Amino acid sequence: MDGQSPQVLLVDCPDRRGLIHAITGVLMRHAANILTNDEFVDREERRFFMRSEFVVMDRPEGETEARSDALVEELRGLLPGPANVRLARAGHHRIAVLATTEHHCLGELLVRHAHAELGASIEAVVSNHATLGPLTGQFGIPFHHVPHQGLTREAHEAALQQVLAPYELDYLVLAKYMRILSPAFIGRYTDRIINIHHSFLPAFVGANPYRQAFERGVKIIGATAHFVTDALDEGPIIAQSIVPIDHSYRPEEMARAGRDVEKIVLAKALKLVFEDRVFLSGNRTIVFD
Amino acid sequence: MDGQSPQVLLVDCPDRRGLIHAITGVLMRHAANILTNDEFVDREERRFFMRSEFVVMDRPEGETEARSDALVEELRGLLPGPANVRLARAGHHRIAVLATTEHHCLGELLVRHAHAELGASIEAVVSNHATLGPLTGQFGIPFHHVPHQGLTREAHEAALQQVLAPYELDYLVLAKYMRILSPAFIGRYTDRIINIHHSFLPAFVGANPYRQAFERGVKIIGATAHFVTDALDEGPIIAQSIVPIDHSYRPEEMARAGRDVEKIVLAKALKLVFEDRVFLSGNRTIVFD
Amino acid sequence: MDGQSPQVLLVDCPDRRGLIHAITGVLMRHAANILTNDEFVDREERRFFMRSEFVVMDRPEGETEARSDALVEELRGLLPGPANVRLARAGHHRIAVLATTEHHCLGELLVRHAHAELGASIEAVVSNHATLGPLTGQFGIPFHHVPHQGLTREAHEAALQQVLAPYELDYLVLAKYMRILSPAFIGRYTDRIINIHHSFLPAFVGANPYRQAFERGVKIIGATAHFVTDALDEGPIIAQSIVPIDHSYRPEEMARAGRDVEKIVLAKALKLVFEDRVFLSGNRTIVFD
Amino acid sequence: MDGQSPQVLLVDCPDRRGLIHAITGVLMRHAANILTNDEFVDREERRFFMRSEFVVMDRPEGETEARSDALVEELRGLLPGPANVRLARAGHHRIAVLATTEHHCLGELLVRHAHAELGASIEAVVSNHATLGPLTGQFGIPFHHVPHQGLTREAHEAALQQVLAPYELDYLVLAKYMRILSPAFIGRYTDRIINIHHSFLPAFVGANPYRQAFERGVKIIGATAHFVTDALDEGPIIAQSIVPIDHSYRPEEMARAGRDVEKIVLAKALKLVFEDRVFLSGNRTIVFD
Repeated sequence: MDGQSPQVLLVDCPDRRGLIHAITGVLMRHAANILTNDEFVDREERRFFMRSEFVVMDRPEGETEARSDALVEELRGLLPGPANVRLARAGHHRIAVLATTEHHCLGELLVRHAHAELGASIEAVVSNHATLGPLTGQFGIPFHHVPHQGLTREAHEAALQQVLAPYELDYLVLAKYMRILSPAFIGRYTDRIINIHHSFLPAFVGANPYRQAFERGVKIIGATAHFVTDALDEGPIIAQSIVPIDHSYRPEEMARAGRDVEKIVLAKALKLVFEDRVFLSGNRTIVFD
Repeated sequence: MDGQSPQVLLVDCPDRRGLIHAITGVLMRHAANILTNDEFVDREERRFFMRSEFVVMDRPEGETEARSDALVEELRGLLPGPANVRLARAGHHRIAVLATTEHHCLGELLVRHAHAELGASIEAVVSNHATLGPLTGQFGIPFHHVPHQGLTREAHEAALQQVLAPYELDYLVLAKYMRILSPAFIGRYTDRIINIHHSFLPAFVGANPYRQAFERGVKIIGATAHFVTDALDEGPIIAQSIVPIDHSYRPEEMARAGRDVEKIVLAKALKLVFEDRVFLSGNRTIVFD
Repeated sequence: MDGQSPQVLLVDCPDRRGLIHAITGVLMRHAANILTNDEFVDREERRFFMRSEFVVMDRPEGETEARSDALVEELRGLLPGPANVRLARAGHHRIAVLATTEHHCLGELLVRHAHAELGASIEAVVSNHATLGPLTGQFGIPFHHVPHQGLTREAHEAALQQVLAPYELDYLVLAKYMRILSPAFIGRYTDRIINIHHSFLPAFVGANPYRQAFERGVKIIGATAHFVTDALDEGPIIAQSIVPIDHSYRPEEMARAGRDVEKIVLAKALKLVFEDRVFLSGNRTIVFD
Repeated sequence: MDGQSPQVLLVDCPDRRGLIHAITGVLMRHAANILTNDEFVDREERRFFMRSEFVVMDRPEGETEARSDALVEELRGLLPGPANVRLARAGHHRIAVLATTEHHCLGELLVRHAHAELGASIEAVVSNHATLGPLTGQFGIPFHHVPHQGLTREAHEAALQQVLAPYELDYLVLAKYMRILSPAFIGRYTDRIINIHHSFLPAFVGANPYRQAFERGVKIIGATAHFVTDALDEGPIIAQSIVPIDHSYRPEEMARAGRDVEKIVLAKALKLVFEDRVFLSGNRTIVFD
């Protein structure tokens, strides 16, 4: 713990009477001053979720690490299991962005990152095409071109992982990365891959969603940011947004309107994740915003 | 034609050069003064759509009907076929509302109707339950209870049609009518039945959409007003809208939030239809709003 | 306290370390099982706000009142002052609606009330015109016509208060009530009068807002539900919403679009207030939704 | 005129019967094939507005310029005055962006421009601070630092104009340019300067709008893109959008949320202007989107 910048405590465990009182008691004994506190009980899952932002005052230098460990340890001893207890510090996440050829989401993340507004550090951009190399380079971020042509999925993902592993990443962001990842690859980053999907899930799953939307004659299109699981486009949803359209939109104009929504929703979801505001509860998210 | 209130001309036909010039020429020769004019070309279908609101001045009494017929006739002779030419007068539609037990959509329509804001005349409310009789009666509208228990679909629809036929209706509005209509019944009101669907189509088709939405963990729910065709929930969409939700919404709270969207979207779609602003083009709508 | 339906505890007081722990401790000692809990610290005002929904189990009949008083008493003794402690039970509020001639907001509230969706009991509708009497009567609610013609403001408000006083109301709802209330009248219902304002505050304060909006050429119009204070249209905002418009809207069409927003925003704000989710903090509201 | 890419005809003049028929007649005689057509009559100003996109086929090379001039000439002779007739070709506008130190709007425009999605060519970025030089340079666009310190407004604007004049610009875009321009400077670019205003006009005009919004306790914040006239923040509105907020937003968080709205609204307004979809009518805009 550190006397200056706030820390974030994230707890989830089976629900039981008195949890808030017990957890805030532990925080008090560790001299924590709570800035904001959020709780939620998922009644379907009978599970309790709590997020506390707090600062600790009057702390001798050098005791930070030891004290944090003690706090987490004490909470683990106290809570009914299975419990998750995490202590995070906002803005310290390391990420890589995977993209293919579309620039709008990547550009959005690079501009925010360049001005310290992303809440995470973009360590690298990786693509199966060379197209986005110059844009990435303009921002001084390493770009890795990992082509998939002529490779099996396993071989391509092995090449990807070879590039990604040294960065010791907290999250992978799929910013219009147009290839399906294997369960084996996803398993290396469980609950740590975030994707932006180019439609309003669960509608129009799969290829060419704007063509599908055009043919269905919808009056609204949307975008969905979600965690990636083995089930294609079925992972827990973090954020969604929409834009109204009318009969004059052809599929390419829907796609253009969709891009504006996609990048804003992706940025919004990442902000929530990087500020440690998102819990997973089964296939749903709890978002304390 | 009538010198006081505006008329609406609706034309659709295969696209060809010079249509606007030709049609406005006919209108000029019939002394029509165009108030607003909208055109659209559906390039997929290579079809032209036009809506003109106009008034005709300096007209001898009694010539109205004959002149309207002459205008339509002249246009039919001029346009490439197959062409549709309609001449409507806003606010003159006769409708019936079909409902089951939920009151929010029906209540919305009754209140608007009572204050001359619906753009149509509600001739009757028909339900397979008695629940909504008192609400309807409060507004002085005939209510017909046509129970379906113990009847085949054919027999129930025959009973419905017996009630509805004498009203000579332009449109049927399904305001949370929870039974599926047969193709034979729908065929009696082709392109003249409007339904409000309790989700953001094409997502969550079928029963219990809010339970489905809850389990998918969506962050937005919506409603869709559409024309009814033989394909369940697949008819041309007129209007859609959404409301953002979060993890704290259980299915019943989603349903409550959904009801507010449903009634507003239905009322919005009906306003468009009753002002003769909606064309059908294949399975899509052209809406001049 | 009552073992069946949840109670709501509302606390606000100067901020201090350990408040959540202390308050949840009191709740535990009174056998309360917290269902949901929300806290917020207004850093400008250095004030703490907390709302807890809870149930109490295993309670001998007849002890309810005494126990509730004891809980409130214990909290008052514990909290730093000046503190507010309230114990409410959702849906038990008694209200009157004041209107003039426009029906859309009143109709919305009457339909919701008729189906037990308002969260409060409409004891009476009061108007300075007779117009809305029949609509109110259809729903079996007492209607009082209190004309203002020929009366001073004082005399008219005295007549109003004579009608209202016997109902022992918790809240007054101004549903398009077009007269300004005097500070003396408002003082009788401090923080208990809610108004719907026909524009997006703070824009277009005062008369004829849609004409003002038209002349300014805005592309969005809105509505604002707020508590009424002495300063005209300046009271704490509870909820706001908007609808996009375009150049084709004349002032009367803006007004029509505005009415749909007004009634939905008013209903939304009332739901929040009647579920005891709204705190006042200076001229701002804290809303736990 | 050119047989390949569509041209845009923009006409506005006093309203009169038969204008659509007359103008489409001229277009037919010039072998124009209309792709889309929009008309609007501003009844307050009794003025007619029309926008036509068209292509001309079967054209001998080299006749383009002469034919365009002839078309415009013929229309000018035909229309009641005072009339405006313009013939534009989408995407051919030359612009400069003026900014101060905030990057979000500039970054948005640079990324879109880099991928040919802006509909105009950014010839230069000009700022009274050096901050945004590196970002601009990354995209290979000339950056001019024109400091205002120690200069009178006249002297600073003279320096600005010296930098801008050689570029022969169609439009100036104020992308968070934080200085007020003099009427003399604005007069050089009448109806050709577009600004993004950091609030929902007409609310919170002037300095520190997010502080104002915080103190008013609003639940929605917005942004407005408008043409610049002599009256500060009072010019014709092109586009507006909003984002909902709640009590937990402090002024700096409102500002952050506001930035996302600002950049999207500015980009949307510019797309409309650069595609020649915006007319001015008094202090209001007519937008054919």
